[in-house]
Amino acid sequence: MNFCSHCGSADLQFRIPDQDNQPRFVCDNCHTIHYQNPKMVTGCLPVWEDRVLLCRRAIAPAYGLWNVPSGYLENGESVADGARREVREEAAAEVTIDYLITVYDLEKVNQVYLQFVGELAGGRYGIGPESLESRLFREEEIPWKDIAFTSSAYTLRAYFANRKSGEQLLHRGSFPETAPPQ
Amino acid sequence: MNFCSHCGSADLQFRIPDQDNQPRFVCDNCHTIHYQNPKMVTGCLPVWEDRVLLCRRAIAPAYGLWNVPSGYLENGESVADGARREVREEAAAEVTIDYLITVYDLEKVNQVYLQFVGELAGGRYGIGPESLESRLFREEEIPWKDIAFTSSAYTLRAYFANRKSGEQLLHRGSFPETAPPQ
Repeated sequence: MNFCSHCGSADLQFRIPDQDNQPRFVCDNCHTIHYQNPKMVTGCLPVWEDRVLLCRRAIAPAYGLWNVPSGYLENGESVADGARREVREEAAAEVTIDYLITVYDLEKVNQVYLQFVGELAGGRYGIGPESLESRLFREEEIPWKDIAFTSSAYTLRAYFANRKSGEQLLHRGSFPETAPPQ
Repeated sequence: MNFCSHCGSADLQFRIPDQDNQPRFVCDNCHTIHYQNPKMVTGCLPVWEDRVLLCRRAIAPAYGLWNVPSGYLENGESVADGARREVREEAAAEVTIDYLITVYDLEKVNQVYLQFVGELAGGRYGIGPESLESRLFREEEIPWKDIAFTSSAYTLRAYFANRKSGEQLLHRGSFPETAPPQ
């Protein structure tokens, strides 16, 4: 942030405003305070029979690695709507959202992942423009060394733990502190 | 947004960038795309014995109404850290986070509420600078007509439903669609 997006002034300072306790970009010309907050990444692990659908990323970061379909929540969307959209965009598939399985904090990059489990409609899927490949995996086939992000590995571990115990538990994790669900 | 925060140009357009499907503010001078995404509001309902702690707001909006301590998640924070901070700021109290009870979508204002249940440490609390008053309420004492936001009413209903059933269910709601938990 080099200029005030309200008045165009370069007279910006990064300081704690009056009656606040966090530093913000403050415009000393028009007095606008520019708040910056974490973003949500929403996604869904599509399940079909005993298999789960992953997509191999065609974009940076983590190009070529396998991922739970996920992406930034957009303005005007509910978290579940965003998750359905990401599955549509990355796997050319429809899901029926089942339950929220993961809340995963990535404080260092100002992100929070919210990932659902859903049923892959009709077992049908394709390859979205951001994917190189989509594939259904049994638990023993998961390419653990080629999973794109720790959040996705966490959600996969959480899902298989839930399936084993017959529960629909929400798992709360973070990078790098949390041990994966067993 | 009137000016590009990167280069200061007023040559901004709100349009769908190449290889995207959502309209964004795009700078036609330096080509920066300015993404805008929903914000998270994090909070915690502090519980002490058979009572819950609410704070009466000393700030707009909803000045004078009762609320579950909540506020915007800040950069660098986990969702639970943000909830603990909000309880500290609004109720001058410490909580031990117990579980996530609510994910509440407010698509129209680009917000998602994430609220926990926690134990009020030692039953001690005060009045933070953003509160007029703090008070412990039994279920039958809750001032339902003077609750600040639908998200807080939803979380209170969810908590009393969970306490009745002995479960720690996550409830997913939204405004205005969702019926409150019973």
